Amino acid sequence: MVRLHNYYAGPAALPQEVIEAAQAELLDFQGSGVSVMETSHRSKEYDHVHNETIALIKELMGLGDNYKVLLLQGGASLQFAMVPMNMLADGKSADYILTGSWSQKAVKEAQIIGNVKVAASTEKDGVFTSIPKQCDLVLDPEAAYCHITSNNTIFGTQWRTFPDTGDVPLVGDMSSDILSRRFDPSPFGIIYAGVQKNLGPAGMAVVMIRDDILAACRKGLPTLLSYGTHADKNSLFNTPPCFTIYMVNKVLHWLKDRGGLEAIEKENTQKAELIYGTIDSSGGFYKNTIAPEDRSQMNVVFNLSTPELEKQFVAEALSASFVGLKGHRSIGGIRVSIYNANTLDSVKDVTAFMTDFAGRNG
Amino acid sequence: MVRLHNYYAGPAALPQEVIEAAQAELLDFQGSGVSVMETSHRSKEYDHVHNETIALIKELMGLGDNYKVLLLQGGASLQFAMVPMNMLADGKSADYILTGSWSQKAVKEAQIIGNVKVAASTEKDGVFTSIPKQCDLVLDPEAAYCHITSNNTIFGTQWRTFPDTGDVPLVGDMSSDILSRRFDPSPFGIIYAGVQKNLGPAGMAVVMIRDDILAACRKGLPTLLSYGTHADKNSLFNTPPCFTIYMVNKVLHWLKDRGGLEAIEKENTQKAELIYGTIDSSGGFYKNTIAPEDRSQMNVVFNLSTPELEKQFVAEALSASFVGLKGHRSIGGIRVSIYNANTLDSVKDVTAFMTDFAGRNG
Repeated sequence: MVRLHNYYAGPAALPQEVIEAAQAELLDFQGSGVSVMETSHRSKEYDHVHNETIALIKELMGLGDNYKVLLLQGGASLQFAMVPMNMLADGKSADYILTGSWSQKAVKEAQIIGNVKVAASTEKDGVFTSIPKQCDLVLDPEAAYCHITSNNTIFGTQWRTFPDTGDVPLVGDMSSDILSRRFDPSPFGIIYAGVQKNLGPAGMAVVMIRDDILAACRKGLPTLLSYGTHADKNSLFNTPPCFTIYMVNKVLHWLKDRGGLEAIEKENTQKAELIYGTIDSSGGFYKNTIAPEDRSQMNVVFNLSTPELEKQFVAEALSASFVGLKGHRSIGGIRVSIYNANTLDSVKDVTAFMTDFAGRNG
Repeated sequence: MVRLHNYYAGPAALPQEVIEAAQAELLDFQGSGVSVMETSHRSKEYDHVHNETIALIKELMGLGDNYKVLLLQGGASLQFAMVPMNMLADGKSADYILTGSWSQKAVKEAQIIGNVKVAASTEKDGVFTSIPKQCDLVLDPEAAYCHITSNNTIFGTQWRTFPDTGDVPLVGDMSSDILSRRFDPSPFGIIYAGVQKNLGPAGMAVVMIRDDILAACRKGLPTLLSYGTHADKNSLFNTPPCFTIYMVNKVLHWLKDRGGLEAIEKENTQKAELIYGTIDSSGGFYKNTIAPEDRSQMNVVFNLSTPELEKQFVAEALSASFVGLKGHRSIGGIRVSIYNANTLDSVKDVTAFMTDFAGRNG
């Protein structure tokens, strides 16, 4: 067995020790005599995993007791609809700040459901290469909420500090940088994240919702699409994706054991500095045009001089055991996704490869 | 490691050889160098699993080319809403036949969305102990569809032959007996099933939809809630629950290798006959009051003379390594869930335990 350096953008690398621990007990979950995939979601063994997962998310995120954590199927894409279905009352409008493809999808979904204003967009000629400044935002003080995408996987930008929306609650899609750094969650009415980048295997979203937002959610929705249903039943109204939750539980323990957000933020910063440093010192061989203050610490995107050279880079990288470095199919180029599970040592190997490749082809 | 006899009603037993095969390659998926949980849903390795899973479902179900198979998050509970959202146009009504708790949940959800008629209900004093006869149905020939629940996990009844609804398409929730027996799918406009009983770990529903129904689905729905979205994108509009699909793929191969539906139906019948035979020959020690023609071949429910004796039965069964025999919390009693993965040998052991217990306590 040869494990590759996994740089997929999502589903993405998981900590190897987490997969090994799951593998060891896959047939017999903690001495229960059945697999965690086979146990009832009402069993005491599963119940512990479920509740501990929720508690670990609250603890690691630093959420106050005024937040509920929901574990929902459908990924972030279903949240694009559930947020306006629950929060956007008739006669109200919501602000959306557009910084990439995912925020475009989010606003498109909200437009199906209610009234929406675009508070800012950094799109130019179909691409987004920056995060707006506070002074660029045209905020509606009466908005039901203001939606942002905290990190843009395709264009490689990230909100390094979040916008000030006054009394309007922020709603953040943090699918690609959840639990990668410290921040104050209190301005957020809802934080949601598909788990398949920093938290576990695909098949779930984590939704953190503040009590005042929950209390004001619209009534009369289809049962599964109402946050109230899942909050009232502790995400056990229907059968949850038990194995996904079990894997997320293991990833959260791994993160806590490494020192939580403070430690992982430090390492994520080191990893990003290594790659951006390699780009910036390549004499133009590698090109990243994003302003330093907007650069993503999760997805580093760059170009080489021609698509042919980029293709050669991806092929040689794969031969050197780095998989997943091809940029998103919509924009091409190279993308190095450096989530929590991508180790510093592996990133050092990537930069060594980049330097070597530039030396041979520059 | 001691593996118990797993009789949970869902999430339920998986074939041991399937879990072992997944365990063996959990760190390195088919020589790809990454776990199947870590690979991109756009990778060629995953693509093969995805498409093969859909093809195997079509083949094993005997579906014509006029059906699409969708792999969706949210379980059957989200389908309770998606079916009427997609199929129940303004001015139309849908028929629902009520045979248990799950069909009650389905009709409640449809009532949130549109007009509904109850074509039959076998409820008496809060319990459902039979399946209606054809002559009991008050069918609306103009109905958009007629919804049934093919097997009732809580009350232990099952449609052994499906109702004739003429030109009105049937919609079947087959979560608890999907791929357990042969039947003609052609009267069904939609068949849906949560996978966590007969197909894999929790976290997905399989939806089979006929082309004429798909073409007539309502437009303007939230993107993720539209069958058209998922049909157009081959269930890859958003990141699918890749690991769940991978496990379902392995279960489908296991089923096909055993001889498909003809073989599994024969074995399921044998298993059910063994347990019902033990009940019927117990001289009233075990009581099942369901008419033989309505008895479920998936969930055998019965009572002992007192709740205390039932508690003792469950405790002694667990000591004898049978887990999950407690009836649903809403009605109590005993439930033996004998899905495809529950082996004939294990069911023989259950009946031996039942006979022994009756002898000692009768």
